[in-house]
Amino acid sequence: MRHGIVLSSRVRLARNYEDIPFDAAQRPEYAAMCVNRTTTALKSAKLGEGFDLLRLREMSEVSRTAMAESRLISRDLLRTPDTAAVLIRVDDALTIMMNEDDHLRIQAIRPELDLTGAAQACFQVDDALSRQAVFAFDEQLGYLTACPTNTGTGMRASLLMHLPMLTRGKQMGDVGQLVAKVGLNIRGVYGEGSEALGNIYQISNQVTLGRTEQELISAVTAVGVQLCDMETALRDKAMKDGRVALEDVVFRAWGTLLHARLMPLNEFYQHWSNIRLGAALGLLKLPLTLADALLDQVQDAHLRVYADEPLEGVQLDECRATRIRELIRLGGE
Amino acid sequence: MRHGIVLSSRVRLARNYEDIPFDAAQRPEYAAMCVNRTTTALKSAKLGEGFDLLRLREMSEVSRTAMAESRLISRDLLRTPDTAAVLIRVDDALTIMMNEDDHLRIQAIRPELDLTGAAQACFQVDDALSRQAVFAFDEQLGYLTACPTNTGTGMRASLLMHLPMLTRGKQMGDVGQLVAKVGLNIRGVYGEGSEALGNIYQISNQVTLGRTEQELISAVTAVGVQLCDMETALRDKAMKDGRVALEDVVFRAWGTLLHARLMPLNEFYQHWSNIRLGAALGLLKLPLTLADALLDQVQDAHLRVYADEPLEGVQLDECRATRIRELIRLGGE
Repeated sequence: MRHGIVLSSRVRLARNYEDIPFDAAQRPEYAAMCVNRTTTALKSAKLGEGFDLLRLREMSEVSRTAMAESRLISRDLLRTPDTAAVLIRVDDALTIMMNEDDHLRIQAIRPELDLTGAAQACFQVDDALSRQAVFAFDEQLGYLTACPTNTGTGMRASLLMHLPMLTRGKQMGDVGQLVAKVGLNIRGVYGEGSEALGNIYQISNQVTLGRTEQELISAVTAVGVQLCDMETALRDKAMKDGRVALEDVVFRAWGTLLHARLMPLNEFYQHWSNIRLGAALGLLKLPLTLADALLDQVQDAHLRVYADEPLEGVQLDECRATRIRELIRLGGE
Repeated sequence: MRHGIVLSSRVRLARNYEDIPFDAAQRPEYAAMCVNRTTTALKSAKLGEGFDLLRLREMSEVSRTAMAESRLISRDLLRTPDTAAVLIRVDDALTIMMNEDDHLRIQAIRPELDLTGAAQACFQVDDALSRQAVFAFDEQLGYLTACPTNTGTGMRASLLMHLPMLTRGKQMGDVGQLVAKVGLNIRGVYGEGSEALGNIYQISNQVTLGRTEQELISAVTAVGVQLCDMETALRDKAMKDGRVALEDVVFRAWGTLLHARLMPLNEFYQHWSNIRLGAALGLLKLPLTLADALLDQVQDAHLRVYADEPLEGVQLDECRATRIRELIRLGGE
């Protein structure tokens, strides 16, 4: 029962054009070259029609931030709004960020555990662009990148995982050691420092050099499966030995999200974790897709876009509570 | 707007038959005499048909306790189950306890602020019984009672009040002084010691001697009205200046009561106070009568009667959560 533990699988490839300086993001003429070349190459490869080109400088700050909240673009891309741009496939499942640390960051996201599918989507774009342009590549090292930590495959494969029972069972320390031992990295996705608000973690490969893309994907997938099994064992035990207590936690969170009139973001994550656990266990009639959509929709920039107002402080908390009720009532029960 | 602050008004009269020892409760032959004489007198006065006679020894312990939880009988009556009995009028609004501290405790309860109505109901019974029997009475002192604190009128007039905003505003210390100054008493109804779980307080006359029944009722009513005005002013202010925050508190409590699967009694009182405030302010579509019925229905003995099981610990909390949902769904929204 691995259902409902992996939220999504993501692969991203770092690529740089051989004949353009690595720091193109800081140099508008090269940055423009990078955007134009990529857009043209996509069109020549007959892939262009499925993509929208968005230049960050033409977007409002709140819209840019909302895209980062949805993980369509990286937070790092927001640092160079004058030169940064992104090609987004209409289904949002594939984006090509331009003029971030590298010239290109090709990123694909798939629901649940499907790194292979995400990698295939990235490689399809990578292949198409390679036929039109030459990427910086070294026979010994592999793909060359702005930061040496990406050199080699240029690939980062990551899983977004919801691990509430491992967290509650104080097992995340052990999990961290296990993950590090096989050269992977684990971190909380939301919150500062060592917090992992919502009990949401990202595991990803640390190393990009000296292993093939397939090896990296297999390694991340294997650890993902192992963590799923550990989390599942705890969920099964809780359902068997403490079902009412578990239901109490789940339904209290549900009741609070459905009825609160002010919802601070940090508090939201606590309740979210409990309702997503309830949804995954079939205790709540809440589609997992809706639960996961909530995660993006209640972020500050999303709320500002939704309300079309520069909300601050308690206004955000009020709008968040309203938006949660609205989304749940539209899609849940 | 005094609506929704006074839960109920209660008057009780202590009476003793002149020719029966005060400690009849400890002496079965006298206790039986007391029960028989009262029952017969009621019948002779053509009042008997409206009353049921319940002898505590013929009831299960859990049923007796449930009656005390509903305040139909006093907790003190439970101390002498072998001799104690009670005549209950079918509408539950009037009870005659027999063989408690005094031979008779005639008690009437009216909804909201209506001590005059409660007193009239008691005096109707008092008059009827007086025509059939002689009560211990002293020209100087008035009615004689087992405990001298009741001597005189033998009357205790009390109001059950819900004072959440005065409590939250830390004004109950001032209220205590104000109440004591006019010779009245205030205490929490639920919880140990100085707790007032649910922010429910009882104000009542301390003194029974040296004042007429009408004076006592006027004094308690006047203080009740004053506390209503103070509480109302705070409610109005909160509705005006912090409506969303107030709604947040009310609806969170509502969501938790509607969805929790385990509800400890002490936690229940917190939420109850908030939903009753919400109901009184018209924020929640919850009849006040239903809110007040909840207070009795979720007590331990009521739950044991309802479930017909000797529930303990977490079973009580689970049954309480179920019962709350059931009652709210039957009558609220």
